Amino acid sequence: MFKKILVANRGEIAIRIMRACRELDIPTVAVYSEADKNALFAKYADESYPIGPAPSSKSYLDINKILDVAEESGADGIHPGYGFLSENPEFARECEKRGITFIGPSSDVIEKMGSKISARNIMIDAGVPVVPGTEEPIEDVNTAIDIAESIGFPVIIKASAGGGGIGMKIVHSREDFEKALNSIQSIASSAFGDSTVFIEKYVEEPRHIEIQILSDKYGNTIYISDRECSIQRRHQKLIEEAPSPIMTPELRKEMGEAAVKAAKAIGYENAGTVEFLYSKGEFYFLEVNTRLQVEHTITEMINGIDIVKDQLYIACGEKLPYKQEDMDIRGSAIECRINAEDPLNDFAPSPGKIRRYRSAGGPGVRVDSGVHMGYTISPYYDSMISKLCVWGKNRDEAINRMKRALFEYVVVGVTTNIPFHKAILENDAFRRGELTTHFIDTHDILEDVEKIVDKEAKRNMTLASALDNQNQKVAAVTSAVNAYLDGYKKQNQ
Amino acid sequence: MFKKILVANRGEIAIRIMRACRELDIPTVAVYSEADKNALFAKYADESYPIGPAPSSKSYLDINKILDVAEESGADGIHPGYGFLSENPEFARECEKRGITFIGPSSDVIEKMGSKISARNIMIDAGVPVVPGTEEPIEDVNTAIDIAESIGFPVIIKASAGGGGIGMKIVHSREDFEKALNSIQSIASSAFGDSTVFIEKYVEEPRHIEIQILSDKYGNTIYISDRECSIQRRHQKLIEEAPSPIMTPELRKEMGEAAVKAAKAIGYENAGTVEFLYSKGEFYFLEVNTRLQVEHTITEMINGIDIVKDQLYIACGEKLPYKQEDMDIRGSAIECRINAEDPLNDFAPSPGKIRRYRSAGGPGVRVDSGVHMGYTISPYYDSMISKLCVWGKNRDEAINRMKRALFEYVVVGVTTNIPFHKAILENDAFRRGELTTHFIDTHDILEDVEKIVDKEAKRNMTLASALDNQNQKVAAVTSAVNAYLDGYKKQNQ
Repeated sequence: MFKKILVANRGEIAIRIMRACRELDIPTVAVYSEADKNALFAKYADESYPIGPAPSSKSYLDINKILDVAEESGADGIHPGYGFLSENPEFARECEKRGITFIGPSSDVIEKMGSKISARNIMIDAGVPVVPGTEEPIEDVNTAIDIAESIGFPVIIKASAGGGGIGMKIVHSREDFEKALNSIQSIASSAFGDSTVFIEKYVEEPRHIEIQILSDKYGNTIYISDRECSIQRRHQKLIEEAPSPIMTPELRKEMGEAAVKAAKAIGYENAGTVEFLYSKGEFYFLEVNTRLQVEHTITEMINGIDIVKDQLYIACGEKLPYKQEDMDIRGSAIECRINAEDPLNDFAPSPGKIRRYRSAGGPGVRVDSGVHMGYTISPYYDSMISKLCVWGKNRDEAINRMKRALFEYVVVGVTTNIPFHKAILENDAFRRGELTTHFIDTHDILEDVEKIVDKEAKRNMTLASALDNQNQKVAAVTSAVNAYLDGYKKQNQ
Repeated sequence: MFKKILVANRGEIAIRIMRACRELDIPTVAVYSEADKNALFAKYADESYPIGPAPSSKSYLDINKILDVAEESGADGIHPGYGFLSENPEFARECEKRGITFIGPSSDVIEKMGSKISARNIMIDAGVPVVPGTEEPIEDVNTAIDIAESIGFPVIIKASAGGGGIGMKIVHSREDFEKALNSIQSIASSAFGDSTVFIEKYVEEPRHIEIQILSDKYGNTIYISDRECSIQRRHQKLIEEAPSPIMTPELRKEMGEAAVKAAKAIGYENAGTVEFLYSKGEFYFLEVNTRLQVEHTITEMINGIDIVKDQLYIACGEKLPYKQEDMDIRGSAIECRINAEDPLNDFAPSPGKIRRYRSAGGPGVRVDSGVHMGYTISPYYDSMISKLCVWGKNRDEAINRMKRALFEYVVVGVTTNIPFHKAILENDAFRRGELTTHFIDTHDILEDVEKIVDKEAKRNMTLASALDNQNQKVAAVTSAVNAYLDGYKKQNQ
């Protein structure tokens, strides 16, 4: 086992990793930026080292500084968490060079999966289903029609040089195809000077479903279970659940085996996630996340395992402690990402001081957080306050429990997305499990959020004004004391 | 289902019950004493009513006041929690009279199980094993020897009129018996004027193991699983675990079926616990707790059920939602009762204000609590701060996780038994599962506690002095502001 582990991350995920280390009796090393010098994770570790100013490029992304701390402190393993350097092949490679174990897959695997095109081609070769479409750009109308027909309508025509929603058109039938193609080609040629296009199957009512996998160094790969992460806003997941409400044992086996195939095709090692788009009985490879994911928590809750500990065991060369047939799912789990952001102001981050904080608790509730009362959420990093997770014996109980936990959760001082989560949890289509990645846009969630915010404003304002009072008192006396001390010093000079 | 439930209790258990109600969308009513008017549970409820001064006899034990509130608020069910009126047959009877459902067994069952002698006799008739011994007091030497031999040594001779450890002797062989009997008889006759004695099997290295049961109104009774509660101090449980480290599937079935037999013998209804003394392969009935227990939490964690919800379903006439074969245990759970008490001062209660509070969290941790930063623990009630529970995939992981959770738990302002729990968790015999109800006395736990307290003193003192500083500032400015206002008022009079 490792002698000492450096956690190259901050906030809740740094604490999550240190919790696993503490339970395994492995000392931990934190690295922190100037903005984080009072943060909980830096105090949680057995040793803590400053690595530079607040901007990530000068601290959490500084490979050399972090590796120097690892060497100085005698850490023989580095856990990168998620974000920051976790999917940076150079970081993994530098660890390998310095003889420090990077807790994750090899730098080559990270690199291969980092490019969407390379990942897609590898999966096609391995027989993992991908969204059908052209591999090369097309200009010729007849070829385009042939391809569209072989894919099957609806298809989407995309300008090769396009992006950001410009130069895309969904076509539902052969009749409409040529006109649409001409229109896209003329837009593309005038806007980008390039009239070539790609043609891809248009996936209707897509769901984001992902499979958690584990692979050891000896070629043993298993799928743990699935998560549905369709509740997203601009590709940012907000609510995740495990298992997916549409999952059946047959589909889980089918998707699980595809995920294992994907992992084996690239010689994957450690914990990873294979993401799929799902629609109407079909699923398509999206990408491999070559790291621990934010939402690993809910898989832990239904499978009764500790994925971070498994990562450590695998990284130090142990065999997978489970076989595929050991994977036994109990109940249903949901995660709400509690962020300091304003859902009614385009989800703008809301950094600031948490002046009153009470987390949820009791049966079936898990909270992963790096904050506390008095903590200041920095504008430099993501605005996550905590991951609020619940478990229930079935999906209905999990939803009711999450509603109860959101009721209990009190954060005063910064605006949070708690009302947004409440609105989703109250939504009938959500309750019925009718999810797509367009859910937030196709339901009037923000109107419901507005009503909830109005209802809660008084409760929070009362709390806040009581606190204002007290803070003003402290400020007043502090300046009085300082003035007195200044006078005292002058007298005694 | 119930229209509205009154919770006739306070603190963490009141909140526990309200959480279940909230998840089932049942409005709740709190009753609170003057000392609890700012307590969290009173704010958690949908409605709250004051019922009198702090002493329990004038509030939480006042049957009529509580039932008047139930009627006034329109509650059709009352949950008594544990302690207070939970095992008071008169309370159950008064509920029955007023047509309000008492969430628990019938008043008759509570009454029968409230008397140790009556409970023992019922169990003997039902064929549930009890500690072998005389049913009637004995004076004659030869009869006494015959009985001791039939029970088998060691036996314990107890003066009928004795108590509190006076007039008791353990005898290991026939040779020593007559002398011991004479000595007890002479002590008893001089101390109590009554030389009759009872003879009972002396249970060596006893473990306290209990079985959680559920029974509905239709005669369906199942055993859920077992808990080991041997870590006690003067019959006060401090650490409980589920399952017992010595449990085997065979023993669980045997003890479980004995518990079901006990429940059926008395026509038990709702959730209950049958407590046994276990020693060397044998187990003996101790008592039935005719209520929800403090430690129901750990059973919920390994069985994946919600016992409070099951209580509600059963009480309103639904059939048991499980069959015996559905009871499936996963992993291992431990509960530490975090109390405001001083283990180094004979566990004296330590009421007072919680000035800094940070609870544990993350994977496998459940905290049930009624307190928060700024909360004042009242001297009127028990000194429980919270129930800290953890789940692990096996007992070793649960122990490691509990150690980690205790490390995270910070309470400043009152003395707690956290160092005591740490000492037990660090103990090798505890790790090996070698538990008896004499554990605390037979291991040098308090010496270990002393070392831990010394180590932690500095950390907590630093926190406390920082807070002192701030509190003094607030106090200073408050008096300055008051003086100013007084002056202002006088000027304007």
